Amino acid sequence: MSKGTVVLAYSGGLDTSCILVWLKEEGYDVITYLANIGQVEDFDAAKKKAESLGAKKVFIEDLRAEFVEEFIWPSVQASAIYEDRYLLGTSVARPCIARRQIQIARQEGAQYVSHGATGKGNDQIRFELTCYALYPEVQIIAPWRIPEFYNRFVGRKDLMEYAEKHGIPVPVTPKAPWSMDANLMHISYESGILENPKSHAPADLYLMTKNPEDAPNSPDVLEIEFKKGVPIKVTHVKEGKSKDTPLDIFSYLNEMGGRHGVGRIDIVENRFIGMKSRGIYETPGGTILYHAHLDIETFTMDREVRRIKQGLGVKFAEMLYNGFWYSPECEFVRHCIDKSQESVEGKVQLSVFKGQVYILGRESPKSLYNEELVSMDVQGDYDPCDASGFIKINAVRFLVPYSLIIFHSSSHTI
Amino acid sequence: MSKGTVVLAYSGGLDTSCILVWLKEEGYDVITYLANIGQVEDFDAAKKKAESLGAKKVFIEDLRAEFVEEFIWPSVQASAIYEDRYLLGTSVARPCIARRQIQIARQEGAQYVSHGATGKGNDQIRFELTCYALYPEVQIIAPWRIPEFYNRFVGRKDLMEYAEKHGIPVPVTPKAPWSMDANLMHISYESGILENPKSHAPADLYLMTKNPEDAPNSPDVLEIEFKKGVPIKVTHVKEGKSKDTPLDIFSYLNEMGGRHGVGRIDIVENRFIGMKSRGIYETPGGTILYHAHLDIETFTMDREVRRIKQGLGVKFAEMLYNGFWYSPECEFVRHCIDKSQESVEGKVQLSVFKGQVYILGRESPKSLYNEELVSMDVQGDYDPCDASGFIKINAVRFLVPYSLIIFHSSSHTI
Amino acid sequence: MSKGTVVLAYSGGLDTSCILVWLKEEGYDVITYLANIGQVEDFDAAKKKAESLGAKKVFIEDLRAEFVEEFIWPSVQASAIYEDRYLLGTSVARPCIARRQIQIARQEGAQYVSHGATGKGNDQIRFELTCYALYPEVQIIAPWRIPEFYNRFVGRKDLMEYAEKHGIPVPVTPKAPWSMDANLMHISYESGILENPKSHAPADLYLMTKNPEDAPNSPDVLEIEFKKGVPIKVTHVKEGKSKDTPLDIFSYLNEMGGRHGVGRIDIVENRFIGMKSRGIYETPGGTILYHAHLDIETFTMDREVRRIKQGLGVKFAEMLYNGFWYSPECEFVRHCIDKSQESVEGKVQLSVFKGQVYILGRESPKSLYNEELVSMDVQGDYDPCDASGFIKINAVRFLVPYSLIIFHSSSHTI
Amino acid sequence: MSKGTVVLAYSGGLDTSCILVWLKEEGYDVITYLANIGQVEDFDAAKKKAESLGAKKVFIEDLRAEFVEEFIWPSVQASAIYEDRYLLGTSVARPCIARRQIQIARQEGAQYVSHGATGKGNDQIRFELTCYALYPEVQIIAPWRIPEFYNRFVGRKDLMEYAEKHGIPVPVTPKAPWSMDANLMHISYESGILENPKSHAPADLYLMTKNPEDAPNSPDVLEIEFKKGVPIKVTHVKEGKSKDTPLDIFSYLNEMGGRHGVGRIDIVENRFIGMKSRGIYETPGGTILYHAHLDIETFTMDREVRRIKQGLGVKFAEMLYNGFWYSPECEFVRHCIDKSQESVEGKVQLSVFKGQVYILGRESPKSLYNEELVSMDVQGDYDPCDASGFIKINAVRFLVPYSLIIFHSSSHTI
Repeated sequence: MSKGTVVLAYSGGLDTSCILVWLKEEGYDVITYLANIGQVEDFDAAKKKAESLGAKKVFIEDLRAEFVEEFIWPSVQASAIYEDRYLLGTSVARPCIARRQIQIARQEGAQYVSHGATGKGNDQIRFELTCYALYPEVQIIAPWRIPEFYNRFVGRKDLMEYAEKHGIPVPVTPKAPWSMDANLMHISYESGILENPKSHAPADLYLMTKNPEDAPNSPDVLEIEFKKGVPIKVTHVKEGKSKDTPLDIFSYLNEMGGRHGVGRIDIVENRFIGMKSRGIYETPGGTILYHAHLDIETFTMDREVRRIKQGLGVKFAEMLYNGFWYSPECEFVRHCIDKSQESVEGKVQLSVFKGQVYILGRESPKSLYNEELVSMDVQGDYDPCDASGFIKINAVRFLVPYSLIIFHSSSHTI
Repeated sequence: MSKGTVVLAYSGGLDTSCILVWLKEEGYDVITYLANIGQVEDFDAAKKKAESLGAKKVFIEDLRAEFVEEFIWPSVQASAIYEDRYLLGTSVARPCIARRQIQIARQEGAQYVSHGATGKGNDQIRFELTCYALYPEVQIIAPWRIPEFYNRFVGRKDLMEYAEKHGIPVPVTPKAPWSMDANLMHISYESGILENPKSHAPADLYLMTKNPEDAPNSPDVLEIEFKKGVPIKVTHVKEGKSKDTPLDIFSYLNEMGGRHGVGRIDIVENRFIGMKSRGIYETPGGTILYHAHLDIETFTMDREVRRIKQGLGVKFAEMLYNGFWYSPECEFVRHCIDKSQESVEGKVQLSVFKGQVYILGRESPKSLYNEELVSMDVQGDYDPCDASGFIKINAVRFLVPYSLIIFHSSSHTI
Repeated sequence: MSKGTVVLAYSGGLDTSCILVWLKEEGYDVITYLANIGQVEDFDAAKKKAESLGAKKVFIEDLRAEFVEEFIWPSVQASAIYEDRYLLGTSVARPCIARRQIQIARQEGAQYVSHGATGKGNDQIRFELTCYALYPEVQIIAPWRIPEFYNRFVGRKDLMEYAEKHGIPVPVTPKAPWSMDANLMHISYESGILENPKSHAPADLYLMTKNPEDAPNSPDVLEIEFKKGVPIKVTHVKEGKSKDTPLDIFSYLNEMGGRHGVGRIDIVENRFIGMKSRGIYETPGGTILYHAHLDIETFTMDREVRRIKQGLGVKFAEMLYNGFWYSPECEFVRHCIDKSQESVEGKVQLSVFKGQVYILGRESPKSLYNEELVSMDVQGDYDPCDASGFIKINAVRFLVPYSLIIFHSSSHTI
Repeated sequence: MSKGTVVLAYSGGLDTSCILVWLKEEGYDVITYLANIGQVEDFDAAKKKAESLGAKKVFIEDLRAEFVEEFIWPSVQASAIYEDRYLLGTSVARPCIARRQIQIARQEGAQYVSHGATGKGNDQIRFELTCYALYPEVQIIAPWRIPEFYNRFVGRKDLMEYAEKHGIPVPVTPKAPWSMDANLMHISYESGILENPKSHAPADLYLMTKNPEDAPNSPDVLEIEFKKGVPIKVTHVKEGKSKDTPLDIFSYLNEMGGRHGVGRIDIVENRFIGMKSRGIYETPGGTILYHAHLDIETFTMDREVRRIKQGLGVKFAEMLYNGFWYSPECEFVRHCIDKSQESVEGKVQLSVFKGQVYILGRESPKSLYNEELVSMDVQGDYDPCDASGFIKINAVRFLVPYSLIIFHSSSHTI
C-alpha cells in the first residue's frame, strides 16, 4: 500500500531522477512537477523521462509571466540587493516555484512534497518556508537531509550506479566542475572548483552574458519607462523597437544586457545557514533594471520617504534571501514598498556597453526635481539668507561646550 | 581701521578673486588660503594673483596625504555611498579643507572666515558646520548669501566688470557651460546645461577618466591588500609594480581607473537643503576601492556584524554628505566602524576594464570563509539534519492560524 | 491702506493680545483664531477680548473630536514616544491647530498667518512647517523672531506697559513661575524655575493629575477594547460604565488617569533646534492608552512585523516632535503603521493605581498567541528535537575559528 | 566504562535531580554545577543532595558580583529592553551561568554539558549558544529534547515516581501552579495557570516586590550617581545611607524597589523559537536603574549620538533575548554602546513610591544642557532670526508642487 502521494520538484537531472525512483522504492506515489521559469531545458524530454521512471502524474508549468510580474517586479521596486551586491535571482524564484508545487499538492490531495536541494544551502529553506506558510500541514521529504539517503549517495558515483541499476538515463556529457542554477533572471555558479575563493572563474563559465571583452564596441541606448516603480515599456532608442509586456520587457533587457556582458559578479556571501559561500552570478536584465529604477526613484520620490524605503528595501532583501517571501513581515514590507512607488514613474535613458550600465538622462511627469529652484542662474523663490539660519541652527548642538570634547580629544584634533 | 582679519578659502578663480577684493573694500584684512587636495591647479600663479590683489598673507597648503589618510580612508572603511550611488568625493574634501582654514584662522588670530560657496548648495553647509564645530566663536562671511553682494553680482557679467575695474585678471578662455569641483578623489560636474536632467552629458565633459569606448581593449589586473579595512598596498599583477603609501596607492588607483574609464555616474541626488540636483561624477580610484573593500569585508567580517555596520555606514554617508564630519555623532560612528574593521584584511584581485571593476578572487589570513564547511563534496562537522529543525522552528510563526490571514487575503493567494 | 489680512493664532493671553494690537499697528487686518483642543479656557471671554481689541473677525473652533480621531489615534497606533519617554502631547496638537488656521486663512483670503510661539522652541517649527505644507505661498509673521518686536518687548514688563497703553486687559493674578501648554492630551510645564534641571518640580504644579500620594487607595480596573489599533470602547469593570466615541473614551481615560495620578514625567529632552530643555508633562489618558495598546499589539501582531513597525514608530515620533506631521515621509509612515494595525484588536484589562498602569490580562479574536503550542504541559505539534537543529544552525557562525577571536580577545574571556 | 564526563547545570530541584540520576544511568560521570546568581536557595542542602545522588564533583559558584558588573551593567548602559517592556532579567543571567559551566567543563576535561531547560523555551538557546561560542567542540545533552527522556517523563508524576524509586528526595510542598526563575535581577513567572493570557495573576505570586497597595504611604528618595553609564553610588537622601560597590548598589536598589512594589509587568512576548508566551516579571532594582540611566544619558549625550545608540540598544536587547551575548555582533555592539557612555555621568534624584519611579532632577559635570541657551528670559548668543531660515529650508521639500500631492490626496486633506 502507498505511504501517500508526494509532489516532487523535478529538474530532469540525475539527482531528482534518482530521488523519484527512491521515493517510489520507499513506497510513495510520486507526482513530478517541473517549473519553467525561463531556464534552458528540454521540457518534453523531462516529461517523458519522468513518466518512464514511474511518475504517477507529470506537471510542466510555465511560470515565466507570473515570475516576472509577481516576484521580479516587487524586487525591482524594492531595489532588492543582498549584502550590497547580489540581486537575488535564485532567491526570488524559489517562492514562485514552491507556490505552484503547493497548489498542485493541494489539488492532487498530496500530503507530501519533496525537493532535491542540499542540506547546506539556502534553497531548502526558501522552498520549505514557502511550503509551510502556504500549506502548514504539509510534510516535507528532503532526501539530502535524510541519513538513509545521503549516506547511500555519498558521491556522484553512487547516483550513477543507482541510475544505471534502475534504468535512469545517465548524462553522457561530463558534469561541469561547478553547479549552476538558471532562470529568467540569472544564472548562478557555485561549488566545485569555485569553492576556492581565490581562484578566478574560468572565462567559459558564463552562459547568459557575453564576455565584455568580446562584446560589441559600441553601446546600445535604451529608454525604459516606469509606472508605479515597475517598467511598462522598453525602447531601443536607435532602432525604435519596443516591448511592453512584463515578460517581453524583461526578456529583451536580458538580451541587451547579455549582448553587452552586463551583470556579472563574483562574491562571497553569507548564507542563512551561517556559513560564507562563494557565488558567481550573471543577471543581465536585472542589473539594467536595478540601475534604471534607482534613477527614476530618486528623481520622483521625496528624500525622506526614500530614506525610509531604503531601509525597508534592505530588510526585504534579507527576507527574500532567507526564504521569507511568504511571511507576515514580507507581506507587510512589500505593501509598504509598493505604497512608496505610487509616483515612481517616468522614463530613463541609459546605455549598455562592455559590462556596464550608464544612466544618461531621465524625465517624469511626477518629478520632484525643480529646475528653477536648483538653478545657479535663477534665484527664484529661494532666499539664500535662509541657509544661514539653517546652518547656524544645525550648529547649535556644537556650541554647548562639552559636546566638543568628543572630537577635540580624538586623533582628528586641530 | 580694519574690521578684522578674514581667512578666505581662495581658489584663484574669478569668484573668489572678486570676493577677496570685495572683502578688502568692506574693510577687512584678507588672508587667502588655497588647499591642494589634488586638483589640477597652478598654485604658484594663484599665490601671485592673491598677493597682487592685496592679500595680507597667502597660504598654499598641500593636504593630499592627510586627505587620503584621515578622510578618504575612513570613508572606504564605511563603504560610504550616498543614496546608493554617490561616493561623496566633494563631501569628504570639505571638512579636510575647512579644518586647515580654521587652524590658520586660529593661528593668525582671525575672527572671520569666508568662502565662495553658493547659497543653494551643500558645500556652504559642509564648510560652515566644520568651522562652527572646530571654532565655535568664529564668524562666517558667505558673500553669496549677503544681499549687498549677491544683488550686486547677479550674473557672471557683473563679476567680469568688477574684475576689470579692480585689476583682477579675467579668464581668457570662456567658462565651461557647467561648474565643476575637482580633487584627488573625484571631479563633479553640475549646473548650466546639466541642469536639465534629461539632457545627456557631453562626451568631452570628463577630465579624470577616459571614455570607456576609447579605453584599452584589455583589462589591467590589480591586487589590493587591505589591513584594518584600508588598503596598504596595490600591485599591478602583470607588471609587478606596486605602491604602498596611502597617497601613492590612491593616486595609482586613480591612474588605473582613469585609464579604463571607471567610476562615471550621472545622478539626481537630494541636497541637504531640500532640493534635488543633478550631478555627474567621476571617481576612478574611489570606485575601485569601494568594490575591493566590500569584497574583503564580506570575506572577513561576521554576517551580523556586517549588517549592523552596513546600517552605520548608511548613516555615516548621510552625515558626511550633510556636512557633519565634525560632530559627536560622526565621531561616534567613525569609531564604531573603525572597530568593525579590525580583522578586515587580506588581498583582493580585480580587473578594471571599459568602465567596470570585476572582482576576481580574494584571500585572507582572517577569512571567516570555511571551505570545508561550505563544500558540497565534504560533509565535515555539519549535520544536515540540523537544517530540518532550523527550518521548522523558523516556520513556527506560520503555524499559528491567524498569522496566515495576512497573505491569504492578499493578491498572492494560492 | 491695509498691508493685508493675517490670521493670528490667538490664546486670549497677554502675549497674543499684544501681538494682535501690534499687528494692527503694523498695518494688518487681523483675524483671530482660537482652537479648542481641550484646554481649560473661557472661550467667550477670549472672543470678546479679541473683538474689543479690534479683530476683524474672531474664530473659536472646537477641534476636540478631530484632534482625538485624526491626530491622537494615529499616535496611539504608532506607540509614538519621543526619546523613550515623551508622549508628544504638545507636538500632536500643533498640526491640528495649524491645519484649521490655514483653512481659515484660505477661506478668508488671508496671505498671512501669525502666532505667538517663541524663537527657541519647537512649536514655531511645528506650526510653520504645517503652514508651508498646506499653503506653500503663505507668509508667516512670527513676532518673537522679528527684531523690532522682540527688542521692544524684552520682558514681561514691556508687554504689561504696552497692554496698559493700548487698553489690553492685564492679568490680575501673577504669572506662574513657569510656562505651560494644555490640551486634551496633556499639560506641559517648562521654563522659569524649571529651567534648573536639578531642582524638583513643586508639588502644586500639576493640574491634570492628582498627586499619587493623595490618589485613591484602591485601583480602578478598566477594560479597553481596540480595533485596528485604536480604542473603540472603554469600560469601568466594576461600575459597568462604558464610553464608545473617540472623544468620550479619551476624556474618560483622562479622568481615570488623572484621578490616580497617572502619566507624570520629568525629563530633559532634545529640541529640534539643537538644545536640550527640561520639560515636565502629565499625560493621564495617553499613558494608559500607550500601555494598553502596546499590550494588545504584541498579542496580535507577528513578531517580525512588530519589529519593523517599532522602527517606523520611532521615526514617526521624531517626525511628529520635529513638526513634520504634514510631510511626504510622515504620510508614508502613517500609512504603513496603519496597515500594520489591521489585526490589532481585542480587549485589555488594566488597573490604574497611584500613578501606575498595570496590565492584568488580554483577549482577542485575532490573537497570535497559541496556548496549546506554548504550553509546558502539552507537546502538541511541536517537536522539541527541532530546537536542537535550530540552535546548532544558529551556532554555525561560531564554529569558524576566526570568528571567535573577537570575544576571546575581549575582557570577557573565559 | 563511562561514556565521559558531563557538567550538569543543577538547580537542586526535582527535574535536575532526576536528570542527574538519569545521566548516571545512561553511563556518564556527572559533575553538578550550581550558580549563585542571587536566587533564594539553600546551597548547602543542594550540595549535599547532589553528592548523595552520586555527583562526582559538586561546584557551587557565587557569580553575583560578576553577574552585576559584567552582565547587568552593560545592559543598563544599553537601556536594554525587549519589545518595549521586558528588562531581560532571565536572558542576562544565562550567559553568565553558562560561561562558568564551560570553564568548569574545560578545567575538568568534560566533553559534555547538560541542562534542564525545556524544549519550547528561550533558555535552552541562551545556554547552548553560549556553550558553542565558548567551547565549540562541546557536546550538549538536553534531556527535555531527547525522546527517550521526554517520552519517559511525560508529566510531573513520572518524575516523582522516578525520584522515589531512585532515592531522590521528593519536594513535600506542592508545586506552585506556575514556574518561576529567580536571580538577583528579577523573578519571572510563567506556565501553568498563567498560560491563559486573560486570567489575572494571583496577588500572592510576587516574591520580590511588595504589592503596591501594601507598600509604604510615603516615598523613598534616592540619588544615584553614574560614571561611564553605570551606577557608582546610590544614596538614600533622607537617611544619608549609601552603597558604592556594584553588588551592594544593585542589592540596595532591589530592596528599595521591592519595598515600594516597583517593576512588575505582565506581558505577552515573542520567543526566539517563534511562539508568543505570557510572562510576569518583577525587576525592582533594574527598573529603577533603567529610568535613572535614561535620564542621565539624555542629559549628557548628544541628541544624534543617542539616536544611533538607541537603535543599537534595541538590537542589543534582541541579541540578549535570543541568546547571542557571546557572538561577534553582540561583542561589537557592546563595544559601541560602551563607547557611547564615556560621558554619561552625573547624579539623578528620584523617588520610588507605590510601584512607580519618579525622576525628580539631575546634575552632571558633563551635562550638555545649557541653561542660558535654553532660557526663555535670556537671549544669549542665540539669534531667533536663524530659526526662520531653519524652518524655511526645512520646508523647501514641500515647495515642489508634486510633493504635496501625497497628502493632498489623503484623508487629511484640508
